[in-house]
Amino acid sequence: MRYLETKPPVFTLTAGPVDAYPEVLRALGTTVLYDYDPAFQALFETVTLKAQKALGCDLPPLILQGEPVLALEGAAASLIARDDVVLNLASGVYGKGFGYWAARYARKVEEIEVPYDTAIDPDQVRAFLKENPEVRVVCVCNHDTPSGTLNDIDAIGAVTAEAGALLIVDAVSSWAGMRTGPTESRAAVYVTGPNKCLGCPPALSLVAVSQAGWEKIEANPDAPFASMLSLTDWKNAWKKTEAFPFTPSVAEINGLDAALDRYLAEGPEAVWARHALTARVCREGIKGMGIELWPVTEDIASPTATAVRMPEGIDAGPVLAEARARYGVSMSAGRAETLGKLIRIGHMGPTAQPAYALLAVSALGGALKALGAKVDVAAGLAAAQAAWDAAIDQ
Amino acid sequence: MRYLETKPPVFTLTAGPVDAYPEVLRALGTTVLYDYDPAFQALFETVTLKAQKALGCDLPPLILQGEPVLALEGAAASLIARDDVVLNLASGVYGKGFGYWAARYARKVEEIEVPYDTAIDPDQVRAFLKENPEVRVVCVCNHDTPSGTLNDIDAIGAVTAEAGALLIVDAVSSWAGMRTGPTESRAAVYVTGPNKCLGCPPALSLVAVSQAGWEKIEANPDAPFASMLSLTDWKNAWKKTEAFPFTPSVAEINGLDAALDRYLAEGPEAVWARHALTARVCREGIKGMGIELWPVTEDIASPTATAVRMPEGIDAGPVLAEARARYGVSMSAGRAETLGKLIRIGHMGPTAQPAYALLAVSALGGALKALGAKVDVAAGLAAAQAAWDAAIDQ
Amino acid sequence: MRYLETKPPVFTLTAGPVDAYPEVLRALGTTVLYDYDPAFQALFETVTLKAQKALGCDLPPLILQGEPVLALEGAAASLIARDDVVLNLASGVYGKGFGYWAARYARKVEEIEVPYDTAIDPDQVRAFLKENPEVRVVCVCNHDTPSGTLNDIDAIGAVTAEAGALLIVDAVSSWAGMRTGPTESRAAVYVTGPNKCLGCPPALSLVAVSQAGWEKIEANPDAPFASMLSLTDWKNAWKKTEAFPFTPSVAEINGLDAALDRYLAEGPEAVWARHALTARVCREGIKGMGIELWPVTEDIASPTATAVRMPEGIDAGPVLAEARARYGVSMSAGRAETLGKLIRIGHMGPTAQPAYALLAVSALGGALKALGAKVDVAAGLAAAQAAWDAAIDQ
Amino acid sequence: MRYLETKPPVFTLTAGPVDAYPEVLRALGTTVLYDYDPAFQALFETVTLKAQKALGCDLPPLILQGEPVLALEGAAASLIARDDVVLNLASGVYGKGFGYWAARYARKVEEIEVPYDTAIDPDQVRAFLKENPEVRVVCVCNHDTPSGTLNDIDAIGAVTAEAGALLIVDAVSSWAGMRTGPTESRAAVYVTGPNKCLGCPPALSLVAVSQAGWEKIEANPDAPFASMLSLTDWKNAWKKTEAFPFTPSVAEINGLDAALDRYLAEGPEAVWARHALTARVCREGIKGMGIELWPVTEDIASPTATAVRMPEGIDAGPVLAEARARYGVSMSAGRAETLGKLIRIGHMGPTAQPAYALLAVSALGGALKALGAKVDVAAGLAAAQAAWDAAIDQ
Repeated sequence: MRYLETKPPVFTLTAGPVDAYPEVLRALGTTVLYDYDPAFQALFETVTLKAQKALGCDLPPLILQGEPVLALEGAAASLIARDDVVLNLASGVYGKGFGYWAARYARKVEEIEVPYDTAIDPDQVRAFLKENPEVRVVCVCNHDTPSGTLNDIDAIGAVTAEAGALLIVDAVSSWAGMRTGPTESRAAVYVTGPNKCLGCPPALSLVAVSQAGWEKIEANPDAPFASMLSLTDWKNAWKKTEAFPFTPSVAEINGLDAALDRYLAEGPEAVWARHALTARVCREGIKGMGIELWPVTEDIASPTATAVRMPEGIDAGPVLAEARARYGVSMSAGRAETLGKLIRIGHMGPTAQPAYALLAVSALGGALKALGAKVDVAAGLAAAQAAWDAAIDQ
Repeated sequence: MRYLETKPPVFTLTAGPVDAYPEVLRALGTTVLYDYDPAFQALFETVTLKAQKALGCDLPPLILQGEPVLALEGAAASLIARDDVVLNLASGVYGKGFGYWAARYARKVEEIEVPYDTAIDPDQVRAFLKENPEVRVVCVCNHDTPSGTLNDIDAIGAVTAEAGALLIVDAVSSWAGMRTGPTESRAAVYVTGPNKCLGCPPALSLVAVSQAGWEKIEANPDAPFASMLSLTDWKNAWKKTEAFPFTPSVAEINGLDAALDRYLAEGPEAVWARHALTARVCREGIKGMGIELWPVTEDIASPTATAVRMPEGIDAGPVLAEARARYGVSMSAGRAETLGKLIRIGHMGPTAQPAYALLAVSALGGALKALGAKVDVAAGLAAAQAAWDAAIDQ
Repeated sequence: MRYLETKPPVFTLTAGPVDAYPEVLRALGTTVLYDYDPAFQALFETVTLKAQKALGCDLPPLILQGEPVLALEGAAASLIARDDVVLNLASGVYGKGFGYWAARYARKVEEIEVPYDTAIDPDQVRAFLKENPEVRVVCVCNHDTPSGTLNDIDAIGAVTAEAGALLIVDAVSSWAGMRTGPTESRAAVYVTGPNKCLGCPPALSLVAVSQAGWEKIEANPDAPFASMLSLTDWKNAWKKTEAFPFTPSVAEINGLDAALDRYLAEGPEAVWARHALTARVCREGIKGMGIELWPVTEDIASPTATAVRMPEGIDAGPVLAEARARYGVSMSAGRAETLGKLIRIGHMGPTAQPAYALLAVSALGGALKALGAKVDVAAGLAAAQAAWDAAIDQ
Repeated sequence: MRYLETKPPVFTLTAGPVDAYPEVLRALGTTVLYDYDPAFQALFETVTLKAQKALGCDLPPLILQGEPVLALEGAAASLIARDDVVLNLASGVYGKGFGYWAARYARKVEEIEVPYDTAIDPDQVRAFLKENPEVRVVCVCNHDTPSGTLNDIDAIGAVTAEAGALLIVDAVSSWAGMRTGPTESRAAVYVTGPNKCLGCPPALSLVAVSQAGWEKIEANPDAPFASMLSLTDWKNAWKKTEAFPFTPSVAEINGLDAALDRYLAEGPEAVWARHALTARVCREGIKGMGIELWPVTEDIASPTATAVRMPEGIDAGPVLAEARARYGVSMSAGRAETLGKLIRIGHMGPTAQPAYALLAVSALGGALKALGAKVDVAAGLAAAQAAWDAAIDQ
């Protein structure tokens, strides 16, 4: 018995998209309202304010009508002015990639790049900024998903603030799965989305812009307006009395509303604990079966996705296909530099449950074994179970 | 008894968003798959090919991940090169608005503008193009929604082709509600979306690019790539073996799949007939109660929305509020130049049923009367009923 | 253009089933829980207590796992003992029908029967009970749906109490659409269901049993137990600590929960007003087009369904088929004695909106006219609109 | 971290209700039609014929409007006449329980009862019938859910036929999860439901009555009619031209339609294989951790539920609570005689996936261990994984 590629897998344990929470799926089917109906305008305001509460930001966040790459491109286009020198921090494919967008708008992009299984050292950033006082904008990815590694954005935010520069944070796949936010990191623009740990389908972005961020954007003559890429267009659109720049994605707003209700009701701390425990169980299981994690040290491993290093001589592609065919489990490949070298198991939203870590160990271990790797699946399962039990009993 | 603004209206008879078909609402709640799961990649290909069938275009259309303003901005950015002279045809707010996007990318934008209750004369376009052979791109809106008026894009497409220029068509609110398509209009880029007559929520665009269109885009060094605004990025993404530029809106793709199934099963001709009949019943009802249509001649009135001219001295705003409060019916205001001067009743997707025309006459007539307009609601209802009966019995 | 029988109609304006409220439809799709999971047991208790609040009864009502015919049969079987003399009140097909169930269990069934377009006179009941003091149980239908007529159950309840007898009420199609309840009517067993005015699909019953009702049932040695027909089995099942006699219909309980939330949030008085207004608009429209109502006097016409008398020589069957084919509107036929003689337009739950009365007048009038009846549809529409406006403006 | 009783569990791995398939959950939310609308009448006929195909019976099966206890009670009431001698076969709580219903209607009920962890021996039935030729009806439970044990209904059906008696089969929790059906077992009345292995919520029954079964029912003067308990009332109701005895549960019929489509599309053989493999993986895991199965021999263990014997001195109740609290997994208790002595893990419909067997081993093993039982969870997980791999690789 093998699972067919033509049918959906049984479990989607990827680093996103993951399945949405059931209440979100149901909310997507709510009657679609006219965007200028007063009931919808009031809903949009309400959802924005709920998102503000969830993000903990001073100003109402933007809800942009596209998945977070829109917000990242828009953030680069809006905040970075043609005379700006930018420092891009690259500890992975996504951090590196942001530099290309930055380069479209900046006078010069400097970069600190570290191996993609490590993290940015905030002290190195402080030193760089001291030596390069002309840097106006620093860009960092909180969780570089293709590596499963975290950067310490609060520390980086502190040294950036010290240097009088502004910070752009990509927190797409960390926010709502761990303690992270625009205020703690002092971000000028903090980009995230409901499509990872909040448990919505991909289609929207959330962007928290600080007062300093808005000032810089408004001073930037090239900041997009009357454009899909504009942040400015949406600044006041959250108010029920204001116009939308264009039609918001009504069904997705309904889904976001349900997801925020769920997040706030479960309690952010409880949600984060669930993500953290799932990741721990998963990592213990992986290590327990004799396989290495991708991050060089575990303290930089994200609680929202576990990146697993492929053993010497094994390409990730066939392993993923085998895990899906044998066990019905869909997991994520790497991207660009990490493609083929690692496999990512997501712990996001509804899949942030330790039980799924067991299934991931079973499927990934079983597939590796089937392809000839030296792996002790039983030991992995035992280690995962033990880690879970230890957490329950502590 | 009055309906509260804080609660959804009973009927949304707007020019979009309108409610989605029930099967689309249910499909939105389908399990969210990983975009690189083979089952989703196969679905994306299948949906694209269904959209191609529905559009009747030679090449697989693009499904862009944003409502059609994204596609319109992207079309301007992609097709119009910095040396191009563009002829923009403006018979309404949307046609006029496209000119501003065109102006960002073109060397020069010429414009034929006509009063917003009339349509573009193809002969005038032919004459203009003859006198201005440097025009490379012509832009036209098929149904200028804020006016409820149609332009004859097939005729305009013919004269454009004659002149060796390329045509950009905005068919967002006409396609799937009447006979219109990229092939008949010889459009280089034909932009529409599933969020009007196809009965989906707003979140996606459909773009048919012709062979000539692709050649021009590929020859344009400034055409966006690695950008939300790019058409090029998505050219091959429909193939199940190719990568996506970024994560598609999975839930909306599931909805689109259901909407296309429904459209093709009901049969496009039957769907168009339903839209046309609804519009006819509505217009007879409006005229029957002594109120004028906005279009100066009825032959340019769209089958997908009826624009109603406010009587002298009556502003549309309070009428809309009154119709909603008294009868629970939400209708659309005008926009920009037409704001306040007209009200629009949509006939799109699930609301393209003659029964809704009766309700629109009742609500609009009743609200006008309540605000002191001279209107014979009973005569309007009688005329609408008679028009419906005549169509049934013919 | 005619609507096909093979496709769903556009509007279901029947006397039930009617479409469920959208929030109920979504709730039906909630994850199905194990009935003995503590979360479900708690939900069942919560829903019962919400139903108690909505019914206004002293004791928690029963939620039976079948549409209300189950509860009616079960009520007869449970309350009526083999030595009982029963007085059955028949003003329509449903009232008459209950007598057959009563006869299975009673020693003797007496009956007051009146023409099916009239109502029971409480004074006649009082007189009968005075002359027949051996009557132990009186049975009455609040809204005899196949006639669209109301009986005054509060007055009948008073005379029944006076006589020391117990009352069984069938309030299936009146409850939640008008002021009616077990307490006001002093019913020993009050049977209703969520599948009419509460806006759920058919599948469940609600039964309010009074203290006196339970005493009689518990004294009845033949009252069913360990049976689908038992009321007793479910007496304590609402408590989260008690067992269910068999598996409850989990999805329907989820739907009922949503429907009760909606009902209590909108407010029963507001819901009843909406039903009453819809019925008034409908009746004025029907009379306005020159067609008679079925009830001989309008004060006994139900606010939850309008029964329309077919003109001389016109059978209801073809009219219903014609209304559906021409206008896409599904309405209800009569039943048994009223079959063919009348058509019923439901005003229940989501269809209790005056706009639907307009559509019903349009469809019924148009169909009658098409079949050769003398009917002034335009006058009917005008009268309906006028009645609606009068209510708004009063 | 413990899971709260007030929140739904993460996984429902019970012996039913289990969660419904996603497509069934979505189908439940389909627009509710009037039962006498021609589109619904046609649907009811279609669904019945699909059910006939799935059941493989000669005559269209009945769809009864209540979960299968209704059908079982109705089968006893309909088939068993007051002069009948019945042989009830009891190998578990459900088989035993059916005897009580039989006793209400029969002249005499004989019984073969065996320990509840064993199965009925068909030879013993043959012998009994030979010695008791007056037996007219034999009653057997295919899968006695509270024991997780199977009876060989085909063999029992053969000896019953030999003896000229009629067979009533309760196949509620076996049908659609393994090879079993009314034809193979020569059942006069074969009762099942869509709420177990077909993956619907509880609310309906399916009943296949053979020609001989109908003859016996029709000859039984006491067979219920005009009653919730009647089979006869529904005999012809499946035809789109016939009336319903009362209103069918429209939403559940929509769900059943989707479930049958899914079952027939996946293919019954594939579905059964999935159930069988899940059970095998589960049993190997249980045994692997040193815990005994309830059935004395594994060949009578059902592929649709695994009953696990509690170790000496451990009551099942606290184990279930602990498994839910620690791991978020809801499993089933025993019932009556088996209550406290065993725990049941369901493999039904969407939970018939081997991955769930791993989770069940993890949760049940972990809970037992936490309560002091001697259990090697790691060995159980290893055994389960090995059994799964062996099946994949064979």
